[in-house]
Amino acid sequence: MMTEFRLHPQLQNDCIELAEFPLCKLLLSNDSQFPWFILVPKIIDATEIYQLTWQEQQQLLNESSLLSELLMQTFNGDKLNVAALGNMVPQLHLHHVVRYKSDNCWPAPIWGKLPTITYSNEEIEHIKSLIIPKINEILS
Amino acid sequence: MMTEFRLHPQLQNDCIELAEFPLCKLLLSNDSQFPWFILVPKIIDATEIYQLTWQEQQQLLNESSLLSELLMQTFNGDKLNVAALGNMVPQLHLHHVVRYKSDNCWPAPIWGKLPTITYSNEEIEHIKSLIIPKINEILS
Repeated sequence: MMTEFRLHPQLQNDCIELAEFPLCKLLLSNDSQFPWFILVPKIIDATEIYQLTWQEQQQLLNESSLLSELLMQTFNGDKLNVAALGNMVPQLHLHHVVRYKSDNCWPAPIWGKLPTITYSNEEIEHIKSLIIPKINEILS
Repeated sequence: MMTEFRLHPQLQNDCIELAEFPLCKLLLSNDSQFPWFILVPKIIDATEIYQLTWQEQQQLLNESSLLSELLMQTFNGDKLNVAALGNMVPQLHLHHVVRYKSDNCWPAPIWGKLPTITYSNEEIEHIKSLIIPKINEILS
């Protein structure tokens, strides 16, 4: 019996699904304090990058670097934070957080620091309009 | 005039140099509370992974995954945290932190959480004896 990949309920709850890359789902973390995006490889039971096949690892890197460049160009950040942590949610996921020297956590990492401030629907639509056309262009 | 790669003074101060991979220097972060290792690509002025050439990116991934597997086998961790942050030290470096559900920060990320407890010389020699022969085997 085939088992289908399913997004972890915590990620489903905390994020908005934006797009599908060949390997990963692209999520927007629903915290308006940071441009914070997450790639989730659609591989069942993956928890660590090194456990993926070499081909999957390369594809993850490829999608991560495409996304990284797009985010830094779009949001004009001072620094990008890229991290695979997974202490709370074991399903392998790769954070991409655009950081500004003026943001409320700088220079500390953002995780677990501030109470979440969720986006309005309008703000989500705005971010989608900034990101999704560029991703479609890259993927086409 | 050629300019030579130099390790950032902060990394030099906070870490012990353990080994040289083809692309990266391998450092041990001098905080005995966590098995915490750092890869620093020997590329001048690199700050973000996506800015490396595709060949360098693949090599970084390769070295990171080799190291990740070796660390998880050696230290028998519950989870590995892999992160490129760089908010404090702009020189591109990739953290690899073996995490335990019993460690003093779990499940929070470790950065900036606890005052450093440096290793004794004996402890450093012990970690070198655990890691360096395995790396030499992989690289030979």
